[in-house]
Order: sequence, then structure tokens, then C-alpha cells
Amino acid sequence: MESNQYQVGCELNYTVSGESAFIFNVSVADNEFQQIVAEQFTTEPPLEVVSSRSPIEDKRHHRFVMNAGPLKVMYSATVQLSHHIRTADEVPETGPGALPADVVPYLYPSRYCESDKLVRLAQHEFGKLEQGFSRVTAICNWIRDNVEYLRGSTDPQTSAFDTATERAGVCRDFAHLAIAFCRALAIPARFTSGYAFALEPPDFHAYFEAWLDGRWYIFDPTRLAPQTGLIRIGTGRDAADTSFATIFGPVAFTAMKVTMISTSGETPVYTTDAISTSGCLK
Amino acid sequence: MESNQYQVGCELNYTVSGESAFIFNVSVADNEFQQIVAEQFTTEPPLEVVSSRSPIEDKRHHRFVMNAGPLKVMYSATVQLSHHIRTADEVPETGPGALPADVVPYLYPSRYCESDKLVRLAQHEFGKLEQGFSRVTAICNWIRDNVEYLRGSTDPQTSAFDTATERAGVCRDFAHLAIAFCRALAIPARFTSGYAFALEPPDFHAYFEAWLDGRWYIFDPTRLAPQTGLIRIGTGRDAADTSFATIFGPVAFTAMKVTMISTSGETPVYTTDAISTSGCLK
Amino acid sequence: MESNQYQVGCELNYTVSGESAFIFNVSVADNEFQQIVAEQFTTEPPLEVVSSRSPIEDKRHHRFVMNAGPLKVMYSATVQLSHHIRTADEVPETGPGALPADVVPYLYPSRYCESDKLVRLAQHEFGKLEQGFSRVTAICNWIRDNVEYLRGSTDPQTSAFDTATERAGVCRDFAHLAIAFCRALAIPARFTSGYAFALEPPDFHAYFEAWLDGRWYIFDPTRLAPQTGLIRIGTGRDAADTSFATIFGPVAFTAMKVTMISTSGETPVYTTDAISTSGCLK
Amino acid sequence: MESNQYQVGCELNYTVSGESAFIFNVSVADNEFQQIVAEQFTTEPPLEVVSSRSPIEDKRHHRFVMNAGPLKVMYSATVQLSHHIRTADEVPETGPGALPADVVPYLYPSRYCESDKLVRLAQHEFGKLEQGFSRVTAICNWIRDNVEYLRGSTDPQTSAFDTATERAGVCRDFAHLAIAFCRALAIPARFTSGYAFALEPPDFHAYFEAWLDGRWYIFDPTRLAPQTGLIRIGTGRDAADTSFATIFGPVAFTAMKVTMISTSGETPVYTTDAISTSGCLK
Repeated sequence: MESNQYQVGCELNYTVSGESAFIFNVSVADNEFQQIVAEQFTTEPPLEVVSSRSPIEDKRHHRFVMNAGPLKVMYSATVQLSHHIRTADEVPETGPGALPADVVPYLYPSRYCESDKLVRLAQHEFGKLEQGFSRVTAICNWIRDNVEYLRGSTDPQTSAFDTATERAGVCRDFAHLAIAFCRALAIPARFTSGYAFALEPPDFHAYFEAWLDGRWYIFDPTRLAPQTGLIRIGTGRDAADTSFATIFGPVAFTAMKVTMISTSGETPVYTTDAISTSGCLK
Repeated sequence: MESNQYQVGCELNYTVSGESAFIFNVSVADNEFQQIVAEQFTTEPPLEVVSSRSPIEDKRHHRFVMNAGPLKVMYSATVQLSHHIRTADEVPETGPGALPADVVPYLYPSRYCESDKLVRLAQHEFGKLEQGFSRVTAICNWIRDNVEYLRGSTDPQTSAFDTATERAGVCRDFAHLAIAFCRALAIPARFTSGYAFALEPPDFHAYFEAWLDGRWYIFDPTRLAPQTGLIRIGTGRDAADTSFATIFGPVAFTAMKVTMISTSGETPVYTTDAISTSGCLK
Repeated sequence: MESNQYQVGCELNYTVSGESAFIFNVSVADNEFQQIVAEQFTTEPPLEVVSSRSPIEDKRHHRFVMNAGPLKVMYSATVQLSHHIRTADEVPETGPGALPADVVPYLYPSRYCESDKLVRLAQHEFGKLEQGFSRVTAICNWIRDNVEYLRGSTDPQTSAFDTATERAGVCRDFAHLAIAFCRALAIPARFTSGYAFALEPPDFHAYFEAWLDGRWYIFDPTRLAPQTGLIRIGTGRDAADTSFATIFGPVAFTAMKVTMISTSGETPVYTTDAISTSGCLK
Repeated sequence: MESNQYQVGCELNYTVSGESAFIFNVSVADNEFQQIVAEQFTTEPPLEVVSSRSPIEDKRHHRFVMNAGPLKVMYSATVQLSHHIRTADEVPETGPGALPADVVPYLYPSRYCESDKLVRLAQHEFGKLEQGFSRVTAICNWIRDNVEYLRGSTDPQTSAFDTATERAGVCRDFAHLAIAFCRALAIPARFTSGYAFALEPPDFHAYFEAWLDGRWYIFDPTRLAPQTGLIRIGTGRDAADTSFATIFGPVAFTAMKVTMISTSGETPVYTTDAISTSGCLK
């Protein structure tokens, strides 16, 4: 199990026009593969921030309420990142009859991943392929070949059903479509938000994880960042579950900065191996 | 806290044409308000059934695999049902800044409850009403007045967005629309499947729960069964999470019977009180 | 120009519960390729029927009003059918700058053919193919290979956008998807309803026509009937324009019979030639 | 029949990157109510422009092809405008059984006016109102009361079905929703693009016409311009039929200017009378 150290962070700026409640999910997930060496979540002005942890996942939230005024939210963390690595052809699918109870919900359709409407398309394109890690890779390849990565082509309401036909989108749409295809084939899949190494332009990233042979494995159909250069923030059914910021009140978003740099001198590379950062229940 | 005893059950028949995996969610949720006095889940032919419980909710599953042949699944239970009852006007809403972490996900849009697309409609119809239990009642009333209960008018892909415009549906559609309206107003809401007293024709029922002042309160916009005559099977984001049967394989559904009778002599009645069967985390 | 004679007809039965207005479009289009030798449109009970002809197409309507009671509508015609036939590879596309004014509207999206939402998919699959008759044939082949012909899989609201993803449908859906693809490539295309030789089970049929090199050419992506065995009833933007029956009032449809037989002894066959039954303006 | 004189015009700027075909529909419709005193359509650079007239409507097109380079399209016209005016309560609806054949197509659903999906909503809101001009006015009032006029809230794919639920839009969306409601009630309705007096900010405008008692009457649910201050450019099923510019090729839109001024000294005013500028067939 190799291990590398990274410095990640973000700065988010808002203009708040009246009392508003904020829930942020920008801090790094804390688990055996992502050890947080140091971490800081601060606000300008200083506010009373409540931090909590999702009862079922390693997602972490920071919440606060504030009145009118400018708001700056800053997060930074030093993270020791490691991976569970296997040779891709050793990773079979798990039949739906053998899935753990807490994985089963990731077979169901969700807001942005209407797998129930994509069963025929998924069966037609991937139904006869050999089962296992390589089939999920084939889904990613299909998306790369058939969907154009195009900033501004989609909006927050765009779903996998739209992207399957409209054939353009950004990282979030790529992940949604891949997840929908997986679920349509009875492969559990979930959405992951994270920090990504060398992403251009720098931004939060979205990718996905598929449940294969007892673990959640990382896939990124955009191929915009190496798999071992992804640091997880949150997982969920789809983007609805992993908003960086959920805001209740009259608030305008004004500017954002996201960073991720390697501090241990090593540089993550693209790989054909199967990369995982979570076992069961996380 | 009054308490009544009921006998509930179902019989589901299938024709299985090849090896198939089944996950059933028909057994009564087991919690402080729903005490299971006796219970039986059997199959014909007899099969090795694994039962499990959802890690985050009181939902219970029975799973098994079988080969080709006819299948009959039978469930019956004797349940002691009680309720947490409050006067409706004593139940305020909880501001989103004060919601427990495990309730927050029920604010997000889901497959059948696209609350993100219904914000303006919800604000226009309910945004200025007094907050609290009565506002959720107003949502139920609006649905009763504007949506026709019509068997066969919808299909498994129909969502709240469709129903808001097409204005016809069944219990599942009524619940989805009510949930979407609640979430669009920042009121957490979840889908509930259950047994219902005196439902005509007898069938499984779908209703919903809204999170108000620290508890999940029961609402049924169909008004087809009294609130105190509902016994919970499962809860979830929407119907995608609470299928009575999730089946992987070549299986045809052939017939179904659902029953619920009062064995303590008392008959549940419609009420304007606030009825709850779950506190936090369940 | 070969010519064959056919006998076509239909019988439609309704139960009318109150005063209702009917507009039928079941009679054969009357043009130089489809000569009507004899024809009869009758109703039981006998009603005052007004017949009219579309001002811009060779579509013909029969209209009447009736009160409550059973209704039987019968139509039969003897038709002399001929074709304009060319070798497929001699039929190029016409650039949009050179289209006649009355053909341009068939480039626009319509209710069931949302070509504006399918541009990327059409470009990806067919954008680089050689232009001309063979490109429209490629569209038909793609639909045959990727969409399952499945009775009952769609409903009257299903559109090309749905079918592009859901991948199942009937003749009407096949035609809608083909039309949407053509328009997305700037090839004018229109929906055609008709009688079809040897269709099993007997029914009205739906196919489409694409405008290529100065004429409307017939295509049938279902391949359920030979191209020279199709007799046109109506054309339009999509199925919304060519309903067999448009009914205003409380009417239930009870039964239908459709027939088409060859009376000249010759049998239409499948061909790879380019078949047309209409030039400009019809 | 009063008459006023107006000066209307537009200037449209494009950057053309390769051979492209253009079809413009910006010139004033030419009919008995809209007499064109003087008119000019010019391009910079000067190009060979073909003008044509729709075979079924009074819509007029200007077409040309050009190669790479900057393009400026200028149109100006002096128009004598008059109206057919009646008292609103003297204008009844026409039953569908009595509609002229060329009006019937405006009962069918179209790309942006899915009247088939809005029947229940239309019936619920307007089904019991007294029939006639006042019922269409009620539709306009409902839209004004329930839909927010909000620039940027919709895109070219937004349809009446979306707007019925999302409750925000611009003039085009207001017209689409009104048309869909009318058709759902069996009132023929069509989309109209035009020049509008005193529109702020100046732009092309979209409104609609409903067929009542033998004529097409003008309605504008936005109430952003007086009904007698509207000059028709084109009519059609919906916005798909009345694009100001249909362009085939690599072209970027850079700037636009639209003007309408009164040259006869009189100023159009809002009215509750029924205003029409077209009888049958136009």
C-alpha cells in the first residue's frame, strides 16, 4: 500500500443578503485510506460552526447560520492518501443476490441517474460483455467516445437520461450517466465528489465508484485526473447528495478557488489497475 | 399512548423462468410504536431465506435465490400499534439550520420527487402560508383538490414533476408530489410504504412523513385510510427505495393478496391530530 | 412506371355517450401515384358526412357530429398504385439553402420529433456518412439494430427523445426517431400514415418520407412491409398531424379491422431502390 | 377600422466562419390589415437574396448563402396597421365540429405546446368557465398570476409542459403555455412573432392568436405591449415555425437591434376589446 501526501483546499466567497443557513461538504472524508494530518475550516467573519459526520458514510459537514454581509469560507487539509490496488482482471462483479444490505440502495434509480429508463440501452451496449471490472471500464470508454466534454452544455437539472441522448456534459454528467448504466446492469454505483490532482482548470471534481467483489472501486469517465490523484470529499446516490454547499436563504455566490498539490514529491499517474479507497459500509 | 392490535399479511405469486434473486420488503417495520407480536415469512417451495435490517432505518428485507418454477411468498404478522399524538397547531416546522444531520438528506431531490424543479410552484401555492403542521396539511388538501385519483393513469416512471402537470395518479404519485412540495419548501419529507386499514380494494399503500419539530409525522394526501390505521413497512427517499419486491431475473408476477384487520375490536378513525410513529433516526 | 391494383379498407367501432364531433383521416390520399378507382365511406347509423381536403397536402378528412349510440365507420377503396423509382445511389441530399419554401417546415422539430435535442447523437452516428439516400438508409438500419419492436412498450405521449434512450417502440415510434435524426442532419422528413400490404397483425401503418433531390422518398425502419406495398393516407410533421380519428366528446373505441389485398395478382416486394409517390408540394 | 402608421426594423450581426445558408423571417406579414408602404431588406456585404412567401400563411422569408466573413442584415418597413375590432363579449368559441379544415391543425400538440399532456390541468382551471373570448382572457390572467416573467430562466428547449410546473419564463414561454391550454380545451391557437410598440428593452416579441367565431384574435399574456401595437411577422404552430433566423453552417450571432415607432402620431393603448388582424386561411 503506497502512500502520498497532498495539500488540498478551497476558498468560497458569497454575498449574503439576509439570515441564511449553510451546510458545507468540502472537507476530506476521513477513513483508513485518507488520513488527515492537519485540517482547518474557517469563515470570515468568524462564525460558530457545527461540524458533523454522516451516520452512514464518511462524509463530513460544517454548518452555520449568518446574517447579511460578505462571507468567505476557507478549508485546507494535509492528507496522507493510500489505495487498495488490484489487477483489473482479478475483480469480478458481485451478483445482486450476494450484495450486502447497505450496498443494495445503490442499485436504485435516483434524481440524476434514472437507471430504470436506461435498461435497454445499457443491455444493448454492455449486456453481453464479460462481467467484471472491464465491463465498467467499457462503460467509461463508451461515454468518452460518445459524449463530448463541453463546459456550459448542461445545467443543474440535467440528468443521465438527458445526457444519454444529448451527448454533451461535464464531469458530473459523465459520472451520472456511468452510474445509471451500472445500475441498469445491476452493478451498484455511487457518485463521488472530490479534490483532483492537476485538474485543469482547478475545480472540485466528480467521478464515481462501482461495487465489485466486496469493495468500492474508483472510475473517472472524464479521464481528466489520474485515479490515484483523487481525494474523496463525499459519496451519495448522485450529485443531489454531495453538494459542496447547501444554502437556505438569500445568498449569491461570487468566487471560488480550489487547489490540490503533492507535498511528498510523487506524482499520481493514470493506471489500468483497479483502485479502491473503501471497503464495505463506507 | 393508545394501542391497538392488527393482523396484516400478503401473498405474492410469481412464475420464475430461470435462476433469479429476490429482495422483499413486505415485513412490518419493528420499532417502539409497532411491536411485532408474531410473524411469519414463508415461501412455496421452501427456500433458504436471509433476513436483514437496513443499517439506517427500521426497514427489513427477506432475500433468497431460486430456480425456475412457480413461487408463492406469504407474510403475516400480528402487530401492536401505538402512536405519538399531538394537537396539530402545536407542531411547528424546524428551520433547515437546526435539522439533525440524518434528516438533511430528505431535503434533496430524488428520482420521483424532483423538488428542484417545483420550487416556484411550491412557493407560489404554499410559500406564504403559516409554517407548521397546517402547511403540510395544506399541501395534502391542494393535491386532493387538484389531482384526480385514477387507477391506470400513471406508470412506474411517473414522477412528481409529471403529476404536477398531468394531475392524475395513484397513492404513490400523490405521496411523491407531496414530498416534492415539502422539500421545495425546505421541509424534510420521506416516502412510506405500508399496510392500510380498510383500503378498498385491498393493496399495499403509499403515504409520506414530514419532519416537524423533532419527529416524523404521518400524512396521507389520498385520504383513503385513517392515519392511525397505517402500519409502516419501509421508508425512503421515494418509491425507488421501498419496492415491495426487487427482482433480478426472468420472473413474471401473477397474483397478489394483501390484508389488514383489527383484532382488538377498535377501529381506527380519521383525525385532525398530528400522528407520528417515529422520532429521530428511524 | 409499373402499376398495381389494391383493395384497402377499415372498419372502426365506437360507443358514443353524448354529442361528439369526429374527424377521420382514413381515406387514401388522392394524387398522380395513387388513383382511386372506387371508394366508399359510410357510417352506421347513416350520418351527414362532410368531406374535405387539406389545403396544403393531399390528406383527406371526413367529418360529422353524432349523438349517443353505437357507431360503426366503414371505409373501402380500390386503388391503382404506381411509383417513381430510381437507383438509390443516384439520389443525393439537397442542401438546406436550396430547399423549396414548402419543404423547409419539415426541418423544424415537432411534438414527437424533438430534433433539436438529438443533434449531437445524430451527428455522432451519421454526421460523417456519405450524404444521400444511403445516409437515410443508415438511419433506418441503426434503428432496426438498436431499437426493439415491442408492442405495448410505448404510449401516445412517447416521443423520439424517449425512444432514442428507451430503445423500444412500435412503427410510430420508429418513424418518429428516424424523422428526428433526419431533421437533426438538415434532411427534411415527414411522418406518413398508410395501409400496408401483408402487415401482421393487420393494422394501420406508420412510416416516413425524406426529401432528397427534389422528391419525397419512402422509408420504413420497421421493415414490416415492402416499400411498394404502402398506400398513403396522410402526411404531416408527426403522428399529431395524422390521427386516424380526432374525436371531441365522450366516446369509447371498441374494435377495429384493417385490410389491404392485391387485386391485380402481383405482390409487392422489398427493394433497395429509391421509391417515391410524391413530388413537390404534396 | 382605424389605421395607424409605424416604422419598424431590425439589424442583426453575425460572424460567419464558413459557407452557410440563412433563412430569415423578419419582414412584416403582408395582408389586408398590415399594408407595407415601403420596405427594405439589405445585407452587408451585398448578397443575392431570394425572397419567398409561405404557401399557407402570410409569412415571408429572405434566403441567401454566404462564405466566411462578417454579416450584417438590415430590415426596415413602413406599415399601415389596422384592426378588426369587436366587443369581447360578442366573440364566442367555435365548436370543433364546425372548424374550417385549415384551422384544425392548430388543435394538435406541437414541439413546445404539448397540449396532450395538459388536458387535466386545463380542464381543472378553465374547463367550467363560460366559453368565448373571456375564457382565453382567463388563461392569460392565470399565466400572469402564476408564472413569473424572468429573463434567463428558460432556454430554447423549454416547453409549455416545463413552464406549467417551473412557473417562470419569457414572452415565448408565456405564449407556448397559453397555446397549449387553448388546444387542451379544443380552442385552436397559434404562435405569433412580431414587432411590438414600446417594448422594453426593445426586442422581437412573441404572443399568440386564438381562433374564435371565425377569426384569429390576438392575445398577449405578458401584457408588455398594447394589442393594437403589435405588427405580425409570422405565425405557426409554435416558436419552431417562426424563428427569426434559421441558419445552417458555422455562424456566431454577435449583436441585434429592433425598433418600432409610431409615425402617425397616435399611440396604441391597452384594450379589453377583441382585436384581430386575420380572417380565415391567414
